[in-house]
Amino acid sequence: MASQQKLPRMMKRSTEVEKRKPHLKRLQKLQTLITEKVLDGFLLCQPENIRYISGFTGSSGWLLISRQRAILATDFRYVEQAKAESPDFDIFQTKGEPQDWLPELVSELRWHKLGFEANSISYETYQRLSDTIRSKQIKLELVPLARIVEQFRSIKEPDEIECITKAAVLADTAFKQAKNIICAGMTEKEVAWEIEKILRQQGSEGVPFEIIVASGANSALPHARPTEKTILSGEPLLIDMGARINGYCSDFTRTLFLGKADKTFQEIYDIVLKAQTTALEGISSGMTAWQADRLARSIVEQAGYGDTFGHGLGHGVGLAIHELPTINPNSSDSLANGMVFTIEPGIYLAGQYGIRIEDLVILENDKVRVLTKADKAIYQLLDKR
Amino acid sequence: MASQQKLPRMMKRSTEVEKRKPHLKRLQKLQTLITEKVLDGFLLCQPENIRYISGFTGSSGWLLISRQRAILATDFRYVEQAKAESPDFDIFQTKGEPQDWLPELVSELRWHKLGFEANSISYETYQRLSDTIRSKQIKLELVPLARIVEQFRSIKEPDEIECITKAAVLADTAFKQAKNIICAGMTEKEVAWEIEKILRQQGSEGVPFEIIVASGANSALPHARPTEKTILSGEPLLIDMGARINGYCSDFTRTLFLGKADKTFQEIYDIVLKAQTTALEGISSGMTAWQADRLARSIVEQAGYGDTFGHGLGHGVGLAIHELPTINPNSSDSLANGMVFTIEPGIYLAGQYGIRIEDLVILENDKVRVLTKADKAIYQLLDKR
Repeated sequence: MASQQKLPRMMKRSTEVEKRKPHLKRLQKLQTLITEKVLDGFLLCQPENIRYISGFTGSSGWLLISRQRAILATDFRYVEQAKAESPDFDIFQTKGEPQDWLPELVSELRWHKLGFEANSISYETYQRLSDTIRSKQIKLELVPLARIVEQFRSIKEPDEIECITKAAVLADTAFKQAKNIICAGMTEKEVAWEIEKILRQQGSEGVPFEIIVASGANSALPHARPTEKTILSGEPLLIDMGARINGYCSDFTRTLFLGKADKTFQEIYDIVLKAQTTALEGISSGMTAWQADRLARSIVEQAGYGDTFGHGLGHGVGLAIHELPTINPNSSDSLANGMVFTIEPGIYLAGQYGIRIEDLVILENDKVRVLTKADKAIYQLLDKR
Repeated sequence: MASQQKLPRMMKRSTEVEKRKPHLKRLQKLQTLITEKVLDGFLLCQPENIRYISGFTGSSGWLLISRQRAILATDFRYVEQAKAESPDFDIFQTKGEPQDWLPELVSELRWHKLGFEANSISYETYQRLSDTIRSKQIKLELVPLARIVEQFRSIKEPDEIECITKAAVLADTAFKQAKNIICAGMTEKEVAWEIEKILRQQGSEGVPFEIIVASGANSALPHARPTEKTILSGEPLLIDMGARINGYCSDFTRTLFLGKADKTFQEIYDIVLKAQTTALEGISSGMTAWQADRLARSIVEQAGYGDTFGHGLGHGVGLAIHELPTINPNSSDSLANGMVFTIEPGIYLAGQYGIRIEDLVILENDKVRVLTKADKAIYQLLDKR
């Protein structure tokens, strides 16, 4: 039980802070924000946010941060890992559900106003914490906050950009190698597995999402899963893939064609490519996400395919494959230097085929720099059979 | 917008119900429960629950169920997939966040009392729905419910048992093959990757969790991740792995030893094995989960290692790798015929090594039947170098 355990010792703070960046710098930034919001503490439960602030990569844990304390609470299974990965945090071993240990711990810390991640905690966990606080007559106010650390994460630091760039290069390389293997007669699943093997054997930590390999009419499903369908000559082939390095993801899509594409396919391909190029060239910092989306969408609309581009233009990429900024027609997110995101317009003709061209980019010096370099001018694969 | 879209048509219900089991039977069971709880409808958002009730496997969607309606709401990316996977559901295409379409849709359906999955929905989503309902003066009460479909899922149907059994056999087979490859000099990561390749090339849908390969002192971390550490002769090697077939998982652990284990290791191994065997033989239906946990834990405690067995005895396995029942010292879950779960006592000596022996079992005819058959009597691997 929490009450039987001694309170974690005070955190050791010293002049070493500078040496221990980036986690300590992020922690300090969060502590400044806690002061600004006149909170005693902030409770984090979102795994990528926890990793970002503390370095802890376990799948189950909580951070309790105040201006002076930094506590990582986790259960028996992860305690040793927590000590190793988060040396600047006090480790508190939990037992049972949050309501079994959290209210008492916070009470012992004499925190009376605790922010929490409203977009990550479940309604039930919140309710149970509230009920326990009330029934034990603990003087504690729970303050809902949302996307605080997610906002920090949306602006990438140099170390993060380096990892994402490596993940982008790895995906490019793997794609190039895969193109030499892919041929008519293979199934979508076989192609996806070949690509995954290349990625992982060259250092990708798993894959950040299930690789999409969709041929023929399957490519018209924006989130298709590889099937047992055989890839045929005379069909388009859409591949959406990424790698992961030190936790950081990459993400890009190319649409290939086995054999010679007909005129209509080439025309639609050119529309998507023009939409994407327009966004790549036109996006600048200070723009809102819906304005960025508009750059590409207006090209697709003008060509008469507006209804077939049913998803947003892109999404932020970092420790998570989908993170801030959100780039779609309704997003008021402001695009800023240091953001890393995808630009991925698509045209999907149900029952026929879909074409999507996606790059991962970084916004720097007020404009877009493309991280995924795989060629996209002419994407016709030789039919090897 | 939701209001611009026509309401989904009434669901086609007919005598075909019997043919379309198991999803329709599950849906009917849920509809009966909705009647019992005097609700107009039930809102589901938990992905495995959605798959269980509707067959839809997309990563983003909502179910809206009433006694007479069954609606699957999802966005543009998944609409075609939803139609194909859930032919008995009306498909509603969403746009924007839940608060942008859900209150109006429910209002048009004339539902006034809506249950929701309190353990899955975020506090923020609940709050936004509530705010919208209030500001639009919609007459709708939100009723928190928890683990309704999770309870259904804990009792497996014959088709599910068949899939889990296949996943167990596949993991057994892969483990047997892996034992012929593993030798001193390989890194933990290399071993994990070899095992994953065997599993996936023989039909596992990815792996249900990152395979644990932990050697020497790393095995003392219950949730270790494979590292670049080289596996050495004279060290234990813990492998925790599973396969996935048609969405259903398997999960088991063996602790090996490269070369000849010393007497202490053998003694501790025997304690863990005895704890596990005692649970396998003693667990019966009607028992509470904490009683089941006690069977194994008392053996470990009697041997003086109680403090080193810091996690629960086991967990349910199905569409999710961790589901109901929860088997630990505090769990009042009642064990019933048809439940599939792990039995996995362990002893972890920090800085030295850990030993865990885990099997996947089904409770049937009031006793445990083991699904994972890999040998565990003597687990000494030859040191091939």
